[in-house]
Amino acid sequence: MSDLEPIITKVEDIGWDARLAKRTHGMKSSVIRELLKVTLQPDMISFAGGLPAPDLFPLREFEEACQYVLQHQGEVALQYGPTEGYSPLKEFLAEKMSKYGILVELENILITNGSQQGLDLIGKVFVDPEACVICSRPTYLGALQAWDAYEARYCTVPLDDEGMCIDELPAILDADHHHRFIYVLPNFHNPAGTTLPLERRKQLVEIARQHDLVIIEDDPYGELRYEGEDITPIFRLAPERTLYLSTFSKTLAPGIRLAWVVAPKPIIAKLVQAKQGADLHTGTFVQMVANDICQRGFLRQHVKRLCEIYHKRRDAMLDALAEHMPEEVSWTRPQGGLFLWARTCDRINTRDFLDKATAAKVAYVPGFAFYPGESGGFHSMRLNFSYCKEELINEGIYRLGIAMKEELA
Amino acid sequence: MSDLEPIITKVEDIGWDARLAKRTHGMKSSVIRELLKVTLQPDMISFAGGLPAPDLFPLREFEEACQYVLQHQGEVALQYGPTEGYSPLKEFLAEKMSKYGILVELENILITNGSQQGLDLIGKVFVDPEACVICSRPTYLGALQAWDAYEARYCTVPLDDEGMCIDELPAILDADHHHRFIYVLPNFHNPAGTTLPLERRKQLVEIARQHDLVIIEDDPYGELRYEGEDITPIFRLAPERTLYLSTFSKTLAPGIRLAWVVAPKPIIAKLVQAKQGADLHTGTFVQMVANDICQRGFLRQHVKRLCEIYHKRRDAMLDALAEHMPEEVSWTRPQGGLFLWARTCDRINTRDFLDKATAAKVAYVPGFAFYPGESGGFHSMRLNFSYCKEELINEGIYRLGIAMKEELA
Repeated sequence: MSDLEPIITKVEDIGWDARLAKRTHGMKSSVIRELLKVTLQPDMISFAGGLPAPDLFPLREFEEACQYVLQHQGEVALQYGPTEGYSPLKEFLAEKMSKYGILVELENILITNGSQQGLDLIGKVFVDPEACVICSRPTYLGALQAWDAYEARYCTVPLDDEGMCIDELPAILDADHHHRFIYVLPNFHNPAGTTLPLERRKQLVEIARQHDLVIIEDDPYGELRYEGEDITPIFRLAPERTLYLSTFSKTLAPGIRLAWVVAPKPIIAKLVQAKQGADLHTGTFVQMVANDICQRGFLRQHVKRLCEIYHKRRDAMLDALAEHMPEEVSWTRPQGGLFLWARTCDRINTRDFLDKATAAKVAYVPGFAFYPGESGGFHSMRLNFSYCKEELINEGIYRLGIAMKEELA
Repeated sequence: MSDLEPIITKVEDIGWDARLAKRTHGMKSSVIRELLKVTLQPDMISFAGGLPAPDLFPLREFEEACQYVLQHQGEVALQYGPTEGYSPLKEFLAEKMSKYGILVELENILITNGSQQGLDLIGKVFVDPEACVICSRPTYLGALQAWDAYEARYCTVPLDDEGMCIDELPAILDADHHHRFIYVLPNFHNPAGTTLPLERRKQLVEIARQHDLVIIEDDPYGELRYEGEDITPIFRLAPERTLYLSTFSKTLAPGIRLAWVVAPKPIIAKLVQAKQGADLHTGTFVQMVANDICQRGFLRQHVKRLCEIYHKRRDAMLDALAEHMPEEVSWTRPQGGLFLWARTCDRINTRDFLDKATAAKVAYVPGFAFYPGESGGFHSMRLNFSYCKEELINEGIYRLGIAMKEELA
């Protein structure tokens, strides 16, 4: 190998930057994923990720399902499959959606490689450069990352303890007419933990109809409700104009990358075309394994168990915040999901403060990451309560509280 | 459920077309995937797909690997993972690339959800609307589909029995200066089955250096060589400007959707950013399963077995063509891979003739599918020889020959 030069590793070598598409200027690495590297330190208590609890993964069920699928349908499971997704899994999902009173046919569903791919395909199909996406501030960082790559602009409305302030929509709709869609996370918002009440959902649908807008309803956590009653999905209220996204990442496991989009048939057909070019299809094997687990009726009992445990962890975090936080700090009280949103005071910039927090071996995601163009959230942070057990949650919030009090002293 | 309206299913309902991004105008469904529906008829002999033989899938090895991974590393396997890919699998791939005399570090590799995703991410990172991609005619249909979505134009050079006619490159390079990269399938070209000789590879690299061009080297079949010696990859000749793609789809199984890109580090960094927005990461579980199979040294012996069997199938197809085809028909003689390319005569339009072929229960892909803008290939067809066993290959080519002779009579 002595005659070999290693491959060139410096940007300067052939001037890569000049060759890249214009859209790459808007791409940047996710703050969260960079942060995750810090959180790998063994004694770090991390409230930063959006990670489900690994000790709750149904390993035995996965093992049985893998064995069953490979022994009985192995030649199908390892072969190419349809872009639309594995039909029996789509049948399961259609049936599952009926609990919300939504009548879904197989042609209304596309299986994706995680919800992130659903967001990306929506960007590909709807977002021209400079087209405007309407969302709350803060909003889900992964959606911003998906649509930044298509050179989206963002028109934002604020968010209060009941989620997106729908009242403020008409003003921005009147001001700008190049809107593509409105992006909503109605249940247990990421990052804010808020839930949009039925009245606001109805109001949103009315405005969307008046202005003839498309709605993207992102619902990764809907099944993880710890108190209160399910609220009618927006998709149920405006099926003609809503694209509904959900995922197995929070209920089964994220490492299999399985999610789905439900939408009117012509839109699914366009998303299928986009997905053909993007990755041909979602893995046949993992779809069949997930389908086997679901068809055995395991998912419902597993979600129930997850809810019991995450409920306790949410309570542990709320209790710890009440006990350890300085009085300047406030937070949302989520009815479900994985996150809550804490507001510090003007004297704490959560981006700068992160160094002090990680020095005290506790991590969170600073609020600016959830604002388009990093235009806000300087005094807020997202805290995840699903990943750590109760004792660690209490210890982590204690450390965070101490560090904040020192900062404010 | 009686009060529910089904979700709206007609394009006209809210006028979806007007809402879609401009780039969707260039998207269309793959001819191959539409064709696959016809080939599902039970008595059809299909030379249409690019399918590996399902009877050769290593089901037992997959079963053992799934069990091992879930029992020993289950909490990692089902959790989120890094966008770049699972490090031990990248180490295996780096080592594997060294057989070509290429020194690869982990930061030079990105694991993708099939090679199709590699092509898509390359489009996202390099292709501005109206940017020009240089390729052979015919070329791989999946690449066209990936880059059509980014509104690429194509500048093409013809292909002969030794692959892309490199001699013709300078003329098109002088005529147009908005080129992004040149796309090559040097080994066992899809669809043509041709292999680019070393001299042409060197000539290509020289021209690329003169014109300061990036090269995309797509090598899904390189390991499936049935005769002759391996030829130095272009990546080895021009590591500073080549992006090399390969896949597990043809060696292990396509249903796990695992492939990789090797490139200079700054390019991998950009592709990683694009992948974060596109689907966060490739499934952790399938990467760990594939890694387990590979680390046990199974891949090499399995590829050897595949080569023995596919070699016989290639020979069976070549023999059957010689025996059953009318004299007007000629074809390439691939040294490896899955496909050969047959040229009929001006009197047979392979698109129209497909109806007659499928009526005779034999299927192929008409040549026009492999030409940008469907601008050629009207008298050619791609034939796959990996999927069917020898007896069926002979029977299928016999049927095709009869149908052609009738057409020409």
